Amino acid sequence: MMNIKEKIKEANNEALEKMANVQPMLVDIELEAKNIIPEMDNKTILHAGPPIEWERMSGPTKGAIAGILVYEGIAETFEEGYEIAASGGIKLDCNHDHDAVGPMTGITAPHQPVFVLEDANSGKKAFCTLNEGRGKVLRFGGWGSDVLNRLNWMKETLAPSLKKAIQHSNGIDIKAIIAESLHMGDEAHNRNRSGTYLFISEILPHLLDTSESDIVKEVFLFLKDNADIFNLNLSMPHSKLIADAARNIDFCTLMVAMARNGTDIGIQISSLGRKWFTSPATMVNGLYFPGYSEKDACPDLGDSTISEVVGIGGFAMACSPAIVSFVGGNASDAVTRTERMYEITAGVSKIFTIPFLNFKGSPTGVDIRKVVELNETPLINTGIAHKEAGIGQIGAGLTSAPLPMFQDALRAFGKKYLEAEEIQDPSS
Amino acid sequence: MMNIKEKIKEANNEALEKMANVQPMLVDIELEAKNIIPEMDNKTILHAGPPIEWERMSGPTKGAIAGILVYEGIAETFEEGYEIAASGGIKLDCNHDHDAVGPMTGITAPHQPVFVLEDANSGKKAFCTLNEGRGKVLRFGGWGSDVLNRLNWMKETLAPSLKKAIQHSNGIDIKAIIAESLHMGDEAHNRNRSGTYLFISEILPHLLDTSESDIVKEVFLFLKDNADIFNLNLSMPHSKLIADAARNIDFCTLMVAMARNGTDIGIQISSLGRKWFTSPATMVNGLYFPGYSEKDACPDLGDSTISEVVGIGGFAMACSPAIVSFVGGNASDAVTRTERMYEITAGVSKIFTIPFLNFKGSPTGVDIRKVVELNETPLINTGIAHKEAGIGQIGAGLTSAPLPMFQDALRAFGKKYLEAEEIQDPSS
Repeated sequence: MMNIKEKIKEANNEALEKMANVQPMLVDIELEAKNIIPEMDNKTILHAGPPIEWERMSGPTKGAIAGILVYEGIAETFEEGYEIAASGGIKLDCNHDHDAVGPMTGITAPHQPVFVLEDANSGKKAFCTLNEGRGKVLRFGGWGSDVLNRLNWMKETLAPSLKKAIQHSNGIDIKAIIAESLHMGDEAHNRNRSGTYLFISEILPHLLDTSESDIVKEVFLFLKDNADIFNLNLSMPHSKLIADAARNIDFCTLMVAMARNGTDIGIQISSLGRKWFTSPATMVNGLYFPGYSEKDACPDLGDSTISEVVGIGGFAMACSPAIVSFVGGNASDAVTRTERMYEITAGVSKIFTIPFLNFKGSPTGVDIRKVVELNETPLINTGIAHKEAGIGQIGAGLTSAPLPMFQDALRAFGKKYLEAEEIQDPSS
Repeated sequence: MMNIKEKIKEANNEALEKMANVQPMLVDIELEAKNIIPEMDNKTILHAGPPIEWERMSGPTKGAIAGILVYEGIAETFEEGYEIAASGGIKLDCNHDHDAVGPMTGITAPHQPVFVLEDANSGKKAFCTLNEGRGKVLRFGGWGSDVLNRLNWMKETLAPSLKKAIQHSNGIDIKAIIAESLHMGDEAHNRNRSGTYLFISEILPHLLDTSESDIVKEVFLFLKDNADIFNLNLSMPHSKLIADAARNIDFCTLMVAMARNGTDIGIQISSLGRKWFTSPATMVNGLYFPGYSEKDACPDLGDSTISEVVGIGGFAMACSPAIVSFVGGNASDAVTRTERMYEITAGVSKIFTIPFLNFKGSPTGVDIRKVVELNETPLINTGIAHKEAGIGQIGAGLTSAPLPMFQDALRAFGKKYLEAEEIQDPSS
């Protein structure tokens, strides 16, 4: 009979194997999220991070909800949207509990278009809105007529034309794009430039076959102008499908979700079901846009740390030395950060490799035992939102997940699986 | 009065300054090279490297000339082309003496289309054919109906449509593309994938405005399928314009051209006019395509080492760790090779920066004094052609320039500028 350590090892290896076998394909855009996202009706607004009630929500999250209610036609003005949400007039829930992910505030509303990704092996789906680009945008809590007009153009022009092109293809292999982009200077969380160009190169022939030239040009220029970030909203549901494959494996000590809502950061563990273990969200050590500083910043925000869960983003910074000009630090830090993450992961990716480490697989599968034992938590690259509603992005930077939620998760694991004496030192 | 060392230092700094100020713009495609390349008539065929007579030419160079004579309508068959060239029926000269450059055999013929690059500051021009892609292609000495059909399609479809798009733009800034591509995993000599995607992203809106959708798609798919290499033929004339800006500066000890014809490798030095200093071309230490080995290989070939002259290519390998899967070696070699090149260069580029070295400028301006003193010669990444005519590319790899031509050049410099006793040790 196997002892507990062997059972954990076997479970973690099974998780890594399942993650490696996922084949996330972009198969469609659904023009109205409510038609495809499970348990979503006309009054459901999804947000990033672990679940949270309106009162405790961060400024940008409240702002994005107020704004999206105008887009949805539920409110006439931003202020009215704010009041409706505050008075409990809508249902709020988190993306992760609806097979979805969203960057920053992560707002996903019933009438927004969403990318539909499907694991070619299991048929399982994941969803994400289309990326708006940088600056004053809804996902950072920004609001104004320019934000609304862009969202409407995305729904009326961008999404329908991309939808036709995607349907005309046999599906776009997003994992292949992400893996290649890591060899082209991206880390696929805050730097997605090569990934976007690779996506363009796959979709363009189909776009040319299904849309008029003027629309192709309009769509192309939007993708090009937002190349740094557009592919994030494909990278994230791709990572969500990979991470979800590792869920619900008995004895598995690997993290399968990590997400922030600007107030809390939470993690989910494979063997511990859908329970969120949370800590207060951390502040980000960042580079700020002119006129802003840390005192303006909202704490860490967004589902985009699904990237780090599967071994890209902050875990693959050694692929992306140029990102330090955006998030801070220097190039040798980029390598050091990746090297540190091998200490807390169960394996190396068979898919995502790091040229500068002689094509070693990226560190993959955060083991909560190692995190607690070494007091070394996942490193995160991220954007920074203004703490007040309505403003938007003010910078980008680096942070690391707080330790207590990992300790809580490990205690819960011990309670479920270990003898009392083993709980004290489950790694021994 | 300045002593000789001070004069050299001042001259070399002037050269670096002039190189940094060049603004190479893609301004046109001329559909028939003879209409724009100086001193080129219907019987002139240009080749890579220093000048060489037919008898001493390498197999692939002879093969490419025989083939292009069929394309030109001068010969009916490859064999007849070979005979015409061997019997002196055409004029042969090297690209560099006609403001042109070409990869591998570097063949440039009167009725081939050429990119026209112009330095926005000086108005000076440089020319290069359009890249055919990989495999069995003319520039590697490959020949067959597939090669001819591709060349005809390039003349009839690719070049005219790109020409209209380029003319519709205000010119495409190639230096900006190259500089950015170095932050996206290219070294811009043997890896040009990001550069090609960046070029596509600049040209596509103009292509959509000036060509029908089916042509846009055909052109786009050709660029995409050859993304690894297409941008090389823009990178090279761009580098030629930069290097040429450093020519003819009294007392300057910097190399302004380095090129190989498969038999000889030659260099030109700023202060020594158009004289070529040559050595036998070296063999390439490479990775071979299945079925081929070093015994099949032609010695080092092509004008593409104009890249290394201006601080990219082999000098910027630290930008491109992923290239080791194509040319051999490992990622740490890539960094080491760049670091070694700082030892023999006069300065660092203000334009081309290396993220992994914390955005240090790439090593730029090979000083023949340092090369000789340290017995350290320029490192080169390159493709490998089959040594026989008609076959094409068989691999890619690494080599370094031979020392004797640098010693010869330094002796010539001494004879022109130094006292007898200084010739012995011009670096002291």
